[in-house]
Amino acid sequence: MLELRLVQGGLLKKVLEAIKDLVNDANFDCSPAGFSLQAMDSSHVALVALLLRSEGFEHYRCDRNLSMGMNLNNMAKMLKCAGNDDIVTIKADDGADSVTFMFESPTQDKISDFEMKLMDIDSEHLGIPEAEFQAIVRMPSAEFARICKDLSTIGDTVVISVTKEGVKFSTRGDIGTASIVCRQNTTVDKPEEATVIEMEEPVTLTFALRYMNSFTKATPLASQVTISLSSDLPGVVEYKVAEMGYIRFYLAPKLEEDEIETQVEARPQVDIRPKAETKRKVEAKPKVETKPKLEIKSEEEREPQVESMVVETKVEADLMDDE
Amino acid sequence: MLELRLVQGGLLKKVLEAIKDLVNDANFDCSPAGFSLQAMDSSHVALVALLLRSEGFEHYRCDRNLSMGMNLNNMAKMLKCAGNDDIVTIKADDGADSVTFMFESPTQDKISDFEMKLMDIDSEHLGIPEAEFQAIVRMPSAEFARICKDLSTIGDTVVISVTKEGVKFSTRGDIGTASIVCRQNTTVDKPEEATVIEMEEPVTLTFALRYMNSFTKATPLASQVTISLSSDLPGVVEYKVAEMGYIRFYLAPKLEEDEIETQVEARPQVDIRPKAETKRKVEAKPKVETKPKLEIKSEEEREPQVESMVVETKVEADLMDDE
Amino acid sequence: MLELRLVQGGLLKKVLEAIKDLVNDANFDCSPAGFSLQAMDSSHVALVALLLRSEGFEHYRCDRNLSMGMNLNNMAKMLKCAGNDDIVTIKADDGADSVTFMFESPTQDKISDFEMKLMDIDSEHLGIPEAEFQAIVRMPSAEFARICKDLSTIGDTVVISVTKEGVKFSTRGDIGTASIVCRQNTTVDKPEEATVIEMEEPVTLTFALRYMNSFTKATPLASQVTISLSSDLPGVVEYKVAEMGYIRFYLAPKLEEDEIETQVEARPQVDIRPKAETKRKVEAKPKVETKPKLEIKSEEEREPQVESMVVETKVEADLMDDE
Repeated sequence: MLELRLVQGGLLKKVLEAIKDLVNDANFDCSPAGFSLQAMDSSHVALVALLLRSEGFEHYRCDRNLSMGMNLNNMAKMLKCAGNDDIVTIKADDGADSVTFMFESPTQDKISDFEMKLMDIDSEHLGIPEAEFQAIVRMPSAEFARICKDLSTIGDTVVISVTKEGVKFSTRGDIGTASIVCRQNTTVDKPEEATVIEMEEPVTLTFALRYMNSFTKATPLASQVTISLSSDLPGVVEYKVAEMGYIRFYLAPKLEEDEIETQVEARPQVDIRPKAETKRKVEAKPKVETKPKLEIKSEEEREPQVESMVVETKVEADLMDDE
Repeated sequence: MLELRLVQGGLLKKVLEAIKDLVNDANFDCSPAGFSLQAMDSSHVALVALLLRSEGFEHYRCDRNLSMGMNLNNMAKMLKCAGNDDIVTIKADDGADSVTFMFESPTQDKISDFEMKLMDIDSEHLGIPEAEFQAIVRMPSAEFARICKDLSTIGDTVVISVTKEGVKFSTRGDIGTASIVCRQNTTVDKPEEATVIEMEEPVTLTFALRYMNSFTKATPLASQVTISLSSDLPGVVEYKVAEMGYIRFYLAPKLEEDEIETQVEARPQVDIRPKAETKRKVEAKPKVETKPKLEIKSEEEREPQVESMVVETKVEADLMDDE
Repeated sequence: MLELRLVQGGLLKKVLEAIKDLVNDANFDCSPAGFSLQAMDSSHVALVALLLRSEGFEHYRCDRNLSMGMNLNNMAKMLKCAGNDDIVTIKADDGADSVTFMFESPTQDKISDFEMKLMDIDSEHLGIPEAEFQAIVRMPSAEFARICKDLSTIGDTVVISVTKEGVKFSTRGDIGTASIVCRQNTTVDKPEEATVIEMEEPVTLTFALRYMNSFTKATPLASQVTISLSSDLPGVVEYKVAEMGYIRFYLAPKLEEDEIETQVEARPQVDIRPKAETKRKVEAKPKVETKPKLEIKSEEEREPQVESMVVETKVEADLMDDE
């Protein structure tokens, strides 16, 4: 028996809007600790991890671990029918093949029950290690969304370079080039307008803008976004979900065109760290030699897959409810 | 000679927006009593009746009854050119083949004349009897519109069930089911937020959501909507037009799939009352045996036609101006 | 070396939005006097002239005359990335094949550099004589935009008739006719709501609404628009750009269908003045006999070209920088 009552039902609507375009079907895992989801996009380039801790719910009953496979588009359709101030309750019986979303208007005059069929979804649960990052940028989420959108009108990829002074987002396309620098700024009137950089060493990575733009659908959830970067790890874009959890997006960096060429010739020993635009720091780091083993066959398949960079140990999803 | 001057010109814009998607061409009938329209949608499933009483106009001159055939889309195009605060005057000469809409801005600095050709439209005027309904629900019009829109994302039809406690709207589709209950609530701060149920006996009817959604285009006209239901009559969805009249939409209920089967076998003696979801009250009412004589040939034609349920007497439109 | 710093960067965004749909590629001419552009639309029916005087810039450095060919759509894409309150700086080196747009946020926390490749565009610079107009109408720009949009729902052309009392815009289409009269009104509370008519003699001209609607994209730039008309000249629609300049759109009037017929038969001596709807004043003016020499071949080519009406002297663009 599962019964999760969330007073801020609007949060759940925003969570679904944030991930439904990236992932079609996914398992929601319920345990006494919380309500969570981990899923890769269909091309295995990006990974999304959601956690809503049980303490954040007004009422949280989860008798046994349960994994519920849902079509996120259908779930989003149902949640869209909730008012922004409605209380949302998620209910499922043990072994049931459906889940119920109940919406109560603040005045209790309108009660809605939406019942959705569950799906069997085959998925591995990746163990994502807590990593140390070379640079962490915290900045207004709306600013980050605007930058990704603006750069998309010029090019397809964004090069993110972090130094102590600020973070630079740049791109290049047929019509020209663009580069946007946001300076560190901690002395703002409103804390949500701050741009804060924690950096151990400068880092420069290239990402597909298409995915970044998809991640920014989570912007309504939080006024700030955190971007964590290391040259040998997927980038992480994180939005807090109120006081109760987070959505984290993991994205494998892209290899620059010329590096791919080099790599094709020089395999198997390859340093895939993107060349820093500024040419600083090439020697600053030891070579990393066992990076994503890309089988480069075609333009299509050149996208590095987040899977091979995240996984420390592939663990069988231990929350799976084998009803 | 016809000259109707309406200070709240914006009303007429809203009226056209409310009906133009349902009906393409229709006759507006002008008599000393008022300005009215009655028309069926092209599939003869729904009927719309509009009345604007002469007292509601600032100036109302109608020397003789006049029936003016108009293309509602074209009329809506012209009325869209009126400002919301403009005074609108409808003018036509006896026997003329055109009508003029004049818009005066509140400051009188801008005067527009739009002249539209009239059409000859062949139409019967149905006599709609004043009926007694088993249940009448009055509720906020925006709430009703929201419910119809929300349910449309799940299914194609809505089952409306009225009991003393409230009204339930439910649907079923490929992705699941939905059911929304609005409780009677007369103790609200603002009268336009009340939900009031007048009921003689519980009633459950099924309607096509496509039509309901079309009716809700009238929502900007009135803060409340009235839904009148009887198991042997078309449902009526009514919006008041300021203090001067109304738009009423009549819609034949749908037969449930299994009832259609029964009916096909058991014709000609058929009880088409939809089965109440709750299984109450099947014996509560006498059999009605001469209901819409559906010639069921194909899926297309299964939609019950409002005509056969409304009409007591088909009367020749007595307002027709035979110029 | 070119460096133009504009504190109201939002102005430049609006300028581009105003002209990018009319003209694809154009040369921006920079001289110590200002930043200007003159270009015809691809069908040579309309001409746009932009001037931003150097005094309007916070900083204006232009060492030598420079003509920079730009794709206006691409330029608009880049300027869209500027915030409305950003300071915009346009920079180019002498002989460079690119231009840089720099955007600084008001807080200086975000600095963007967009670099765009320049194009070689072959263009003649037309000498546009300062003309005397028979009638000049100044009116609220939003009102003019609304009228053009409204009339477009009815017809393709607008007949503009100016008399002392006011200006009449009328059209005719399949569904009927429309005519909108704006009366002179100089006694308004807010000067931007005034409609002022300066008239030497009544004038009536016909224009393609498609172009008028395109011109009204400049509406956000100015609260008032000025329409200058003479029966033997292109109409001029002008929007001021803050205190620093203007956008002027020139449009050749259309010949009425019957006049075209006449002209085809009676060439070469043709009076192309459109017939006044009101039949006043046909004798009031001397015949003008050397009007646009239209080679009428097909419906397509009947559109009078602005070029032949504007040009007094075709001058070679003397600002062209031949790098």
